[in-house]
Amino acid sequence: MICRNDCIHRDGQDPLREIRQQFVLPPGIIYLDGNSLGPLPKAVPERIEQVVRQEWGVGLIRSWNSVGWVDLPQKVGAKIAPLIGAQANEVIAADSTSINLFKCLCMALSLRPERKAVVSEQSNFPTDLYMVEGVRQFLGRDFELRLMDGDQIEAALSDDVAVLMLTEVDFKTGRLHDMRRLTEKAHAKGILTIWDLAHSTGALPVDLAAAEADFAVGCGYKYLNGGPGAPAFIFVKAELQSQTRSPLTGWFGHANPFDFTTAYKPAPDIRRQLCGTPAVIGLSALDAALDIFNGVSMSMVRTKSLALSDLFMALLAERLENEFDIVTPQDPAQRGSQVSLMHPHGYAIVQALIERGIIGDFRAPNILRFGLASLYLRFVDIFDAIEGVSAVMKERSYLTPRYAMRAAVT
Amino acid sequence: MICRNDCIHRDGQDPLREIRQQFVLPPGIIYLDGNSLGPLPKAVPERIEQVVRQEWGVGLIRSWNSVGWVDLPQKVGAKIAPLIGAQANEVIAADSTSINLFKCLCMALSLRPERKAVVSEQSNFPTDLYMVEGVRQFLGRDFELRLMDGDQIEAALSDDVAVLMLTEVDFKTGRLHDMRRLTEKAHAKGILTIWDLAHSTGALPVDLAAAEADFAVGCGYKYLNGGPGAPAFIFVKAELQSQTRSPLTGWFGHANPFDFTTAYKPAPDIRRQLCGTPAVIGLSALDAALDIFNGVSMSMVRTKSLALSDLFMALLAERLENEFDIVTPQDPAQRGSQVSLMHPHGYAIVQALIERGIIGDFRAPNILRFGLASLYLRFVDIFDAIEGVSAVMKERSYLTPRYAMRAAVT
Repeated sequence: MICRNDCIHRDGQDPLREIRQQFVLPPGIIYLDGNSLGPLPKAVPERIEQVVRQEWGVGLIRSWNSVGWVDLPQKVGAKIAPLIGAQANEVIAADSTSINLFKCLCMALSLRPERKAVVSEQSNFPTDLYMVEGVRQFLGRDFELRLMDGDQIEAALSDDVAVLMLTEVDFKTGRLHDMRRLTEKAHAKGILTIWDLAHSTGALPVDLAAAEADFAVGCGYKYLNGGPGAPAFIFVKAELQSQTRSPLTGWFGHANPFDFTTAYKPAPDIRRQLCGTPAVIGLSALDAALDIFNGVSMSMVRTKSLALSDLFMALLAERLENEFDIVTPQDPAQRGSQVSLMHPHGYAIVQALIERGIIGDFRAPNILRFGLASLYLRFVDIFDAIEGVSAVMKERSYLTPRYAMRAAVT
Repeated sequence: MICRNDCIHRDGQDPLREIRQQFVLPPGIIYLDGNSLGPLPKAVPERIEQVVRQEWGVGLIRSWNSVGWVDLPQKVGAKIAPLIGAQANEVIAADSTSINLFKCLCMALSLRPERKAVVSEQSNFPTDLYMVEGVRQFLGRDFELRLMDGDQIEAALSDDVAVLMLTEVDFKTGRLHDMRRLTEKAHAKGILTIWDLAHSTGALPVDLAAAEADFAVGCGYKYLNGGPGAPAFIFVKAELQSQTRSPLTGWFGHANPFDFTTAYKPAPDIRRQLCGTPAVIGLSALDAALDIFNGVSMSMVRTKSLALSDLFMALLAERLENEFDIVTPQDPAQRGSQVSLMHPHGYAIVQALIERGIIGDFRAPNILRFGLASLYLRFVDIFDAIEGVSAVMKERSYLTPRYAMRAAVT
């Protein structure tokens, strides 16, 4: 039996243990939902106050140049780059993940004008699939969206396929794809790849360069802790940048936005992925949040994350055998940074846990999802969380009518 | 001769004079650039602090529902609606002005599949024209962009035109179009209209309903004072909403985003214009900023704005005759809420004025632009600004080499 003191001991040995001090973590809460919204880094409120009261309030319009608001998208992109194995000039922070996917889809399709299909995964995050629908309807070019099961993706990589679009870590199950292998298989057939790194960036090492990936997008508000609705990012491989232009040809993507010329001329570099005026306050929050990663080794983050999910599953096996189906792969090579469980009363159980201060989330129809972020979670938090799950399951407290009622209005 | 005391007297009579108290206005600054970035409303820093420290920091993921983050785009849209003569269910805050234009262009073109042209104005804000280029390249449908001079727009409204896309108030000259007349002329030929309200919303009364306008977009960071890069808004006339869908089919535009279904089903209402996860911090700043308009009569705002620009031009005529060409129309019916001057040394003069605390802006190649926002400017500010312009022109201080150097790197 794993005991609580074992976990406390492991926390004492954890090389990342001090990083937790950089977050606001409300007392009485075990936060296992940083894969949906990362917690507040302590540096963020102060930075936002500076941006709002000083840079906006006093600097006014002058701050675009005097404090470099105009460069924030590139500055933030350059901070994200080392987390995903990219060069600083290959990443820029802008818009939302969905909109950045739209850009990538249009660009990748334009590079493969003769091809007839986009391959993705049946279980991909819905917005990724929705964006393909939008592109298809408006592009005036017929292509098929082929949705495969995870283990059939390789077989679907035929030479009529233009684009392979995948999310590296599945949002529901937490299954991790082999990006390098799939990209290599895709390239062997002349297929371009778009990787959605929403559940990877900041959670585990990503190496876009080693994979020779073409396009990628990711999210600012999950493991990067940039705040609710934080700007997202887009990656375009250096050698593709001059060959592609975003369909969203807004003024901030122009080579010389302040020349106010009538014709569009894309910026020579990654800035051509910008569109409208950058969201300065959101970018500043994300910028401050990213400083937490300074000097943090992503391989240490990964080691701890796997240890946390191993512990989570070991405790489940000890205490709650047969209560849940674990849908997250046991094989560490296929596991992201979360543990997902299946249960017919999933929604009600998640609600009962939240009432006890154990915050995970529910993904319809029956998945309980627990994000395990190495930067602020302790082994003892996992122990206490499983204690809470055990209590809820023992008391059957989730069967009260009020959870069912709340389920109906969600 | 108009004297300073006349202006102070007028300020004492100004029914809007108290509203100025709701803004942070740095001492020693006369801010004539609220048409580029509105100043900080006093309510905003407190609201942002609440959102960041409390809603995000303590509420964490729960705040999406518990404090209604999820409804912010509609809530903010509903606050903008009365400023532009729209119903609450016709406006939503999202993304950037450029991206919202993209949505409008795709939707309007899809409603006129047989037609061959978009008409706009040669002097339109560049991003509006750039977005048409992106749409054209991406849409796989050939259409012509016909760029007219302002007085030739009506003549260009032929029945092969799909869309008339105009900015109501010209960003450079401040010339105000007759939205109602042009929309009526367009409709008579079966042409749909897209109005960019960037320099109108919050600056003068806009009545989309009276004009029977089809689509509109606008900006959150100019006269709405929502902060740098604030979310923008999009208007779709109620009767067009079910006939159109955004090409940016992200999950927040889905009828049931949290069902996580694979196929896209657009929301039945204006929410179908949403795409990715809403930018909560930026939306909250804009939401707080909009409260300043509670109970403010837009016709009073207009009356004062015209009085400010009349005063500006009268003082120019008295003190600086022949120094500048005034490019803003003298006719109040054709004047927005700014005064723009032409001068070959425009850039250097703007820089010299900024050094004196008089902040306007420069628009290449030779325009000095002064935004006149009724909510926080006083008549005496206009007087003092013109005194500053007179001093700069008299001393010829703008001819120093350092301004020329700075011009070269802008």
